[in-house]
Amino acid sequence: MQALVYKGPRRVEIDNVPDPRIEQPTDVLVRITTTNICGSDLHMYEGRTSVEQGKVLGHENLGVVIETGEAVQRVKVGDRVCLPFNIACGFCKNCERGLTGFCLTMNPGSAGAAYGYADMGPYPGGQAEYLRVPYGDFNCLLLPPDAEEKEDDYVMLSDIFPTGYHATELAGVQPGDSVVIYGAGPVGLLAAHSAMIRGAAKVMVVDRHDDRLELAERMGAIPVDDRAGDPVEQVTDLTGGEGADKGCECVGWQCHDPAGQEVPNLTMNRLVQSVRATGRIGVVGVFVPKDPKSPDEMARDGKIAFDMGAFFQKGLSMGSGQCNVKAYNRKLCDLIEAGRAKPSFIVSHRLPLRQAPEAYEHFDRRESGWTKVALKLAA
Amino acid sequence: MQALVYKGPRRVEIDNVPDPRIEQPTDVLVRITTTNICGSDLHMYEGRTSVEQGKVLGHENLGVVIETGEAVQRVKVGDRVCLPFNIACGFCKNCERGLTGFCLTMNPGSAGAAYGYADMGPYPGGQAEYLRVPYGDFNCLLLPPDAEEKEDDYVMLSDIFPTGYHATELAGVQPGDSVVIYGAGPVGLLAAHSAMIRGAAKVMVVDRHDDRLELAERMGAIPVDDRAGDPVEQVTDLTGGEGADKGCECVGWQCHDPAGQEVPNLTMNRLVQSVRATGRIGVVGVFVPKDPKSPDEMARDGKIAFDMGAFFQKGLSMGSGQCNVKAYNRKLCDLIEAGRAKPSFIVSHRLPLRQAPEAYEHFDRRESGWTKVALKLAA
Amino acid sequence: MQALVYKGPRRVEIDNVPDPRIEQPTDVLVRITTTNICGSDLHMYEGRTSVEQGKVLGHENLGVVIETGEAVQRVKVGDRVCLPFNIACGFCKNCERGLTGFCLTMNPGSAGAAYGYADMGPYPGGQAEYLRVPYGDFNCLLLPPDAEEKEDDYVMLSDIFPTGYHATELAGVQPGDSVVIYGAGPVGLLAAHSAMIRGAAKVMVVDRHDDRLELAERMGAIPVDDRAGDPVEQVTDLTGGEGADKGCECVGWQCHDPAGQEVPNLTMNRLVQSVRATGRIGVVGVFVPKDPKSPDEMARDGKIAFDMGAFFQKGLSMGSGQCNVKAYNRKLCDLIEAGRAKPSFIVSHRLPLRQAPEAYEHFDRRESGWTKVALKLAA
Amino acid sequence: MQALVYKGPRRVEIDNVPDPRIEQPTDVLVRITTTNICGSDLHMYEGRTSVEQGKVLGHENLGVVIETGEAVQRVKVGDRVCLPFNIACGFCKNCERGLTGFCLTMNPGSAGAAYGYADMGPYPGGQAEYLRVPYGDFNCLLLPPDAEEKEDDYVMLSDIFPTGYHATELAGVQPGDSVVIYGAGPVGLLAAHSAMIRGAAKVMVVDRHDDRLELAERMGAIPVDDRAGDPVEQVTDLTGGEGADKGCECVGWQCHDPAGQEVPNLTMNRLVQSVRATGRIGVVGVFVPKDPKSPDEMARDGKIAFDMGAFFQKGLSMGSGQCNVKAYNRKLCDLIEAGRAKPSFIVSHRLPLRQAPEAYEHFDRRESGWTKVALKLAA
Repeated sequence: MQALVYKGPRRVEIDNVPDPRIEQPTDVLVRITTTNICGSDLHMYEGRTSVEQGKVLGHENLGVVIETGEAVQRVKVGDRVCLPFNIACGFCKNCERGLTGFCLTMNPGSAGAAYGYADMGPYPGGQAEYLRVPYGDFNCLLLPPDAEEKEDDYVMLSDIFPTGYHATELAGVQPGDSVVIYGAGPVGLLAAHSAMIRGAAKVMVVDRHDDRLELAERMGAIPVDDRAGDPVEQVTDLTGGEGADKGCECVGWQCHDPAGQEVPNLTMNRLVQSVRATGRIGVVGVFVPKDPKSPDEMARDGKIAFDMGAFFQKGLSMGSGQCNVKAYNRKLCDLIEAGRAKPSFIVSHRLPLRQAPEAYEHFDRRESGWTKVALKLAA
Repeated sequence: MQALVYKGPRRVEIDNVPDPRIEQPTDVLVRITTTNICGSDLHMYEGRTSVEQGKVLGHENLGVVIETGEAVQRVKVGDRVCLPFNIACGFCKNCERGLTGFCLTMNPGSAGAAYGYADMGPYPGGQAEYLRVPYGDFNCLLLPPDAEEKEDDYVMLSDIFPTGYHATELAGVQPGDSVVIYGAGPVGLLAAHSAMIRGAAKVMVVDRHDDRLELAERMGAIPVDDRAGDPVEQVTDLTGGEGADKGCECVGWQCHDPAGQEVPNLTMNRLVQSVRATGRIGVVGVFVPKDPKSPDEMARDGKIAFDMGAFFQKGLSMGSGQCNVKAYNRKLCDLIEAGRAKPSFIVSHRLPLRQAPEAYEHFDRRESGWTKVALKLAA
Repeated sequence: MQALVYKGPRRVEIDNVPDPRIEQPTDVLVRITTTNICGSDLHMYEGRTSVEQGKVLGHENLGVVIETGEAVQRVKVGDRVCLPFNIACGFCKNCERGLTGFCLTMNPGSAGAAYGYADMGPYPGGQAEYLRVPYGDFNCLLLPPDAEEKEDDYVMLSDIFPTGYHATELAGVQPGDSVVIYGAGPVGLLAAHSAMIRGAAKVMVVDRHDDRLELAERMGAIPVDDRAGDPVEQVTDLTGGEGADKGCECVGWQCHDPAGQEVPNLTMNRLVQSVRATGRIGVVGVFVPKDPKSPDEMARDGKIAFDMGAFFQKGLSMGSGQCNVKAYNRKLCDLIEAGRAKPSFIVSHRLPLRQAPEAYEHFDRRESGWTKVALKLAA
Repeated sequence: MQALVYKGPRRVEIDNVPDPRIEQPTDVLVRITTTNICGSDLHMYEGRTSVEQGKVLGHENLGVVIETGEAVQRVKVGDRVCLPFNIACGFCKNCERGLTGFCLTMNPGSAGAAYGYADMGPYPGGQAEYLRVPYGDFNCLLLPPDAEEKEDDYVMLSDIFPTGYHATELAGVQPGDSVVIYGAGPVGLLAAHSAMIRGAAKVMVVDRHDDRLELAERMGAIPVDDRAGDPVEQVTDLTGGEGADKGCECVGWQCHDPAGQEVPNLTMNRLVQSVRATGRIGVVGVFVPKDPKSPDEMARDGKIAFDMGAFFQKGLSMGSGQCNVKAYNRKLCDLIEAGRAKPSFIVSHRLPLRQAPEAYEHFDRRESGWTKVALKLAA
């Protein structure tokens, strides 16, 4: 089959690779119809990870079931399904509590597996014609009757909509809260969408790209342009001097200052300053334990200079980590079906799989207007 | 009246100061019968804070009501009461949600007030004969009939028992959990006591003082001596290679390595390594936003080199900050009355107020056997 | 002053009564500007309670502070404030946990006090020119700058908006949930509004009055007309055969069947049938422990024939009781100020206080179009 | 193989039945070593259910794995495992949220499946030599190294220890609470044990059997003998006139008054009276939707005359239903291994399987001293 393959830093190609097949009686095979490029794919693309050459990328996948193993009971051939980027067994100590992002079975020696990702197990990604889904009954989300029509919405259930929502869950966003979100990339925008859905009174989104700030505003948030002045001051002013009730980190360690310099602790310390005493912060932007190529010495060892003193004095809390997609995808699916959520508002490009390599190029340059690329495969 | 007064770094004296009096109709006056020296008093004693000379210290206070303002309805003259170290109004945005450690009324411009403490408002402490208690109906905990008999237990309700409990609450300790606690000082020991009360299956306490490790063991915990090897490895071994479910920080920024050097990030990063993926950490050891006299450059600005990469990859959460004493003191009081909690097990010395200065000296040197000093005032 | 006074079953009059005055240093006096008639006032109006003749009614009150006791610190003369119908001390065992609807101080021997209500303490109501507010610093909600402009919204914070919200809180409504609400009176409509704010995917409102069902539909809910067939079947069909995730009871014991007969267990048992296994029910419609005048024998003793077997087999949960207004009014206020909540959509009539007696008459007959009456007092 | 078979009201026999075998690739076969008789087996034994003749009974099972289907990965031949009485798929809408007691897959048309039980699917029980366990990787709890030595403790993890714990979870028991438990049968006693583990300050157990009240007292609870006077008054006195914070129903609809008459609403209404305003009740005693043979007319239809008025006025909450065993069995297992829980204290008889019929007879007569029967199978 055709698939997008990692060939080295800033080199991805469409290649012929062997078709996946049923390996375990619990497997399901899916023909991919839509698969997105994720901002976190760029960490691999830029050569900042240990991902091996030849890996098929892609962890935001949706498609149609074409074959099922003999132990599969719930999922049927022909079902349209969305696949959580987490690959989970369903029965380990973490999965049984719903912590499927930290499955202890699928990537032994670590906690958590994923399709087409560095250090997340030997699983090819879905930027390809076909995908093998382990433990299909557990991992497949069956989509409602309007699945084809709203495919660009439902595909977001694979990762970034639940991940944006997870940021608001980790932050404990409640109805009536004021919420500040650092980062208006796809995840930050869907964190803002999630905060609105959860009944936040005021959602402020900090970024410095006009197109992204516009999208934030269009879905009801207050755009905060950090080129226009210290965002901490802006948020403080917008909250009557108090600071926001809750904050979300949707940028991660590769955060840049306006001069283009990586400053890994920038958003975390701004969040500590931007939320009010007793507030709570949800961190879904990626931080990594080792980053040998970082220009920042402390960051090479996974550390940041963190304002622990202010964090403690204000009595703050924070939650972090990869999203347990299955914890949210069913309810978010219901919201899409009911017309109360519309995560596809972030899609800027719909391209065929063969154009994926150039899409990576544009997206990696953070070109204006390249918010989110959905790759489409013809039936 | 007689009171212990701060005179400068490592200088406290018993002095004559004016008697407190009812200033507001909501005030209550208390004759102190027991008042403890707290580990956090040593930050002031050592000159590491901005506390003003002449300040009466003492925020762990218990006594008998001798006068009430005309708006006081619940509290009566003669009641034996324990006073939370937090001074709270009861009606601000934070107090009404139970966050009395972050009262917005009593220390304007900041969040949170306390008796006899640096930067916590103009309130004299209770290492004295008498104490003025603002908003007496809200702040006084009325004690049960056995109050005198168990006075050494009930006085712990003013701060360190709720603070130790708060660590376990912030960490989300559940029945059956394994819990690691860094620090076997009074707060760490009462965090361990709290974790046992909450039904933890395994409580591990890390320290390097024999007397404290013995106390930990005596109340059911597993002592982990960090002189005997890397405590992270010891905890990992004790949990079958997994790490603890939950962790508590009960040391703070003045953490020392075995050589006596301050290493402000030592316990935090060890906790990140000691808890399992998806775990949770509660931080009640004090971290400060500014520490001009710190030997560590980053710490002068309140920062620590924090393992954010590992924290994120493991999907950890943490809560922090001063304890909201009123959130817990009533239920912990019930446990003492029922004989199911006995926090006085940590008291090593019972001394008259006049011996407070020498008690500070011994306690500050962390002399063996000086775990906790209760100052007693004659009726 | 002028006030609406209860004179006996179905007899209320505007009368001259003594002006209230500051009685305690913690009191506040308010000049009422808007005060609503509540559906629960009709229980008294109809003579179904033990309320004494001469009682001034009215517990949905908003006005301007005209005097404060000497212990009052936060509230100032001139502040526009909304008063929770609960009168609470702020410091008892229940209030300190936020359970202000069950204050143990203000109505000794019972749990919970209110203005102008049967068995809720000796407090006159606010359908009058002036109102004494005990513990003013604790009980007054200070309104934002747009208070006058949105007075019809903010007055709903006194009772029915928080009460409707409380129904959804007791039911544990989460984003993406399907929710069924029995009763499209003011509380049911605001429960539906609250469920939408909380991100419910599907809100179904059961009633049989066209005007109310229309209001439900206008704010985004699905109207379920029980004249058109068994509402349990309709809800089951609307949820793909599953039943709703959550349910709200907003009718109470004086529930009528279509023939006009009181059937006290009707909504409760329909809720048990309407929600899915593992679901949760919030009950804010009033049930009373004694109802000597009930036509139903069991109801005289406060009992209903409840489907406990089905409740248990489905593993259901339920929460009940009067709303703790202070638990919600601040955040709901923020939502109104931000324009994200608009509870005034239910107001059908704005009348001067002197027309209150005829308003009671119309409202009690459940005349079409009489959804909610706001009484206005001239400055 | 040999198995205990239901033959009709009050008739069970040891019979030869076909050996179970692997039917699905996800199945596991277990050789039973201990299997208990449960109080709920008596509902079938007494002919109060629709269970079919020929059914093998037994849902409290522990044994050794002797064969695994080809899709089974975690469980190995030779593992000693305890089986939750719930049979669950692990991937349906309810299972994925941990609500395994309400699995939608294993008993189509209903919610929840079990071994050897009326209306819980076509699964034979484990009072037999061998047992087929569907979805073995999900349903088997692997036991720690001391499994054989503490087999009488670990077998309680199949049902009654988690079920007793579930009562305290549904009731929201917190450290420091006072808790009243109606019923000192095995489940009530383990609810009391659970409440103690969770840190309750005071646990009161209501019953009228001396042997059971003694067991309650021995593990730290206060026995309340309802032959000695109204238990509501006793509980009220024991709680200083307030009522208990939380309550647990561990009796069910076949509750008897002292005269031996079934009074289905007796414990529920006593609980409403016994808990304080704002309290919470957990119901794990079984109530059934239909009981055609009940002497009580209302009960035939699954209804009870419930004190809804008092329930509402006190602002009570309640949770109910079958325990989701997997939600608790792992942590309770850790507590047993750590020596902090010892549920075997209730075992009164250890008998070979062949003596099961006479054990049913004694147990059904509630003979003094017959608290709990463990059936033992020789290797």
